[in-house]
Amino acid sequence: SIHFGALKAVDSVTIGFAPGRVHAIIGPNGAGKTTLINLLSGDLTPSGGTIRFEGHDITRTPPDQVSQLGIGRSYQKTNIFSEFTCFENCWLGAQSRLPSSMRFLRPARACVRVAEGAADPQSAIDALETEARRIHEEDVAACHAIGANGASLLDAETTLLTHCNTGSLATGGYGTALGVVRAAWEQGKLERVYVTETRPLLQGARLTAWELQREGIPFTLVVDSAAGSLLRRGLVRAVVVGADRIAANGDVANKIGTYTLAVLAGENGVPFYAAAPTSTIDPSTPSGDDIPIEERDPAEVTALVGMGTTAANPAFDVTPSGYVSAIITENGVASPPYEASLAGLLREEAPSRG
Amino acid sequence: SIHFGALKAVDSVTIGFAPGRVHAIIGPNGAGKTTLINLLSGDLTPSGGTIRFEGHDITRTPPDQVSQLGIGRSYQKTNIFSEFTCFENCWLGAQSRLPSSMRFLRPARACVRVAEGAADPQSAIDALETEARRIHEEDVAACHAIGANGASLLDAETTLLTHCNTGSLATGGYGTALGVVRAAWEQGKLERVYVTETRPLLQGARLTAWELQREGIPFTLVVDSAAGSLLRRGLVRAVVVGADRIAANGDVANKIGTYTLAVLAGENGVPFYAAAPTSTIDPSTPSGDDIPIEERDPAEVTALVGMGTTAANPAFDVTPSGYVSAIITENGVASPPYEASLAGLLREEAPSRG
Repeated sequence: SIHFGALKAVDSVTIGFAPGRVHAIIGPNGAGKTTLINLLSGDLTPSGGTIRFEGHDITRTPPDQVSQLGIGRSYQKTNIFSEFTCFENCWLGAQSRLPSSMRFLRPARACVRVAEGAADPQSAIDALETEARRIHEEDVAACHAIGANGASLLDAETTLLTHCNTGSLATGGYGTALGVVRAAWEQGKLERVYVTETRPLLQGARLTAWELQREGIPFTLVVDSAAGSLLRRGLVRAVVVGADRIAANGDVANKIGTYTLAVLAGENGVPFYAAAPTSTIDPSTPSGDDIPIEERDPAEVTALVGMGTTAANPAFDVTPSGYVSAIITENGVASPPYEASLAGLLREEAPSRG
Repeated sequence: SIHFGALKAVDSVTIGFAPGRVHAIIGPNGAGKTTLINLLSGDLTPSGGTIRFEGHDITRTPPDQVSQLGIGRSYQKTNIFSEFTCFENCWLGAQSRLPSSMRFLRPARACVRVAEGAADPQSAIDALETEARRIHEEDVAACHAIGANGASLLDAETTLLTHCNTGSLATGGYGTALGVVRAAWEQGKLERVYVTETRPLLQGARLTAWELQREGIPFTLVVDSAAGSLLRRGLVRAVVVGADRIAANGDVANKIGTYTLAVLAGENGVPFYAAAPTSTIDPSTPSGDDIPIEERDPAEVTALVGMGTTAANPAFDVTPSGYVSAIITENGVASPPYEASLAGLLREEAPSRG
C-alpha cells in the first residue's frame, strides 16, 4: 500500500510475478499503475506491506540497489530519437550530463562495435565483458605511461600542486595527474604535493587527500584560493592537472579553477602541465571556445551556508593553450605548437590500436 | 560537580557570591580551584549541578556569552611585559592574532591617549565612550567617502567582483569594498556583483551574501576558483576588495585569494581596486615583504571533510602594487607610483584630524 496524505494510490495490492513470463498491468488513468512500478523499482517506499524479490525482502531497498538485483524498468517517455543509433542516443544523454568530457566516448564506441559484431545476445554480453576488461587494462597501462612521461619532466626534490581528483578513483587506476605525482614519488623525486580542496564538491579534500594518505605520499591540503600565494612564495615547482577534453589547438577543458592555476603558474614562472590519455584529445574540436561548459546545480555552492542565495556554478573552465607548458599523454609529451604535436601523438597511436 | 573519567575534580560544591564583595577560594595544588573557575566562566561544562548568575541558569552558556553577561576572569599566567605600556601589551596580543591588520591600531592609540588624559577612572570611562562614538562615526563617514570615490571610477551598467566581507559587518557601517558596491548601486551604475564564497571561513557566502540580500542588490555567489572563469568570459568589469594593511609602496595585504584575483584581473584587462581607509596605509612598512601573514588553524580547512589531513591555512596574502590599478580611500584615490600618491593622501588627512 501507499498513500499520499488522504489519497490511497495503491491500496493493499497483492501480486506475484512468475519467472520467464510476461505480465501486463492494465487499468484506466489514475488506477495506480505507475505508482506500483515506482514501488517495485524502489523509487517510492510503501506506506505498508512488503515487496519480495527471489525470496528477499526489498521493501526499503534504494533504486540503484534494486536495479543491481536485476529489476530493470523502462520509462513511459524515453525521449530517444528514432533516427539515431543506440550509441548516438546514449552519447546524447552522456553529453548533456558531462558536456566537456571525452573520457567515455572512445570506450563507448569500442563497446558498440563489439556488441554489433556478436551473433546473439549471450555472445554480445561475453564480448562486452572481454572488451570492458581490455579497456580497463589499457587505461591503467596508459596512466602508468602518463606517470612515467610526466615524472621525466620533473627535477629532483620537486614540489607539485594538483587540483581535483585524477587518481585511482577517477581513472582505471594509478591516475593521470596523480599518476605523475605517484611516479615522481616512486622515483624519489617528490618532496611534497599541494592539494587544492576543489570546491564545491571537494574532490581534492575528499578523494585526492584520501589516496595520498593511503600511499604515504607527503601532502598539504589548501583552500583553492591559497594556490596563488603558494606559487608566489616559491613553494611549488610545477602544477599538474588532468583534462576533460583537449582541443586540437591544445586548449584544455578541466575542473573549474584550472585556468586560474595556469595563469598563476605562468605569472610565477612555474610550468603548468596537463596530464591526460590521448582519448581526451579531440581533433574535431578546433579550440576551447568550442567546448561546452557544464553549469551545475547552484545548490552545490550554497549548501554549505544553507541560504537561498543566487549562485553560479560552472563546473569546468577552459585554459587557453598559451598557458600550458606541456600536455603529458601515454604516447609522449606534446609541446607548443600543439596542433602539430597533438596530431603527431594521435597518429603514432593508430597502428597499435588497429 | 565535574569529573574527568574516574577523577572528581569538583565534587558537589555549593557556593554563593554576594554582590559588591570580594571572595577568595583557597586550597592546595589539585584542590580544584581552577576547575571551579573554568566551570563559572563556561570553559568547562559541569557533569552535574547548576550554575546561576543573577537568577538565571547559565550552566551550559558558552564562555563568550558568559563574559557578555558580566562574568570576567583573569588568567593565572598573563604574560605581560612589565617594561611595556598597557597599550603596547594589548597591541602585542592583537598583533599576534591579526598580524597583517592595521585596522585597530589608530583607534586603539586614540583611546589610550584619551584615557591617559583623564583625571580619574570614571572620567576615563566617560571619555573612552565619547571617543568610541567619535571613532565609529568617523569610520562610517570614511566608508561613505570610500564608496563615493570608488563609484566615481566605475562606468554605467557595471558588474563587480568582490572577495571576503568588507561591509557593515566588517566596518563601522556601509563598508569599504562593499561601500563601493553600495554606492555604485545607489547611483544606478551597478548591474550585478559577483561574490566569492571565501573559503575557509566563507565570509563571502555567509556575510556579504546576507548583506546584499537584505539590501536587494543583485548578486551571484561563486566558488573562489570560478573567479578566473568569470573574468575570462568578460562577465566582470572591475574587481574591488578591501585591505588589511597597505605598505608604503602600495602592496596590499588582504584575505587569502586576493593576489589571485589581482593577477587574473590584470591578465584579462580588468581594473583591480583596493578600497580601504587611510588608517590601513602604513608608511612604516616599506613593502609587502615586510607584512607578516597569519597562518591559521588547519582545522578550518579540514573540518569540512573531517579528515586528519595535513593542511596549510595562510589567512592572508600580499598583492604586489604592480597588480593594483588604484587604491580607493576616504581622502581620495591613489594611483601608481604609490609611494608618492599614498603619502599625499596621508598628508592631506593630517590637518582635519588634529
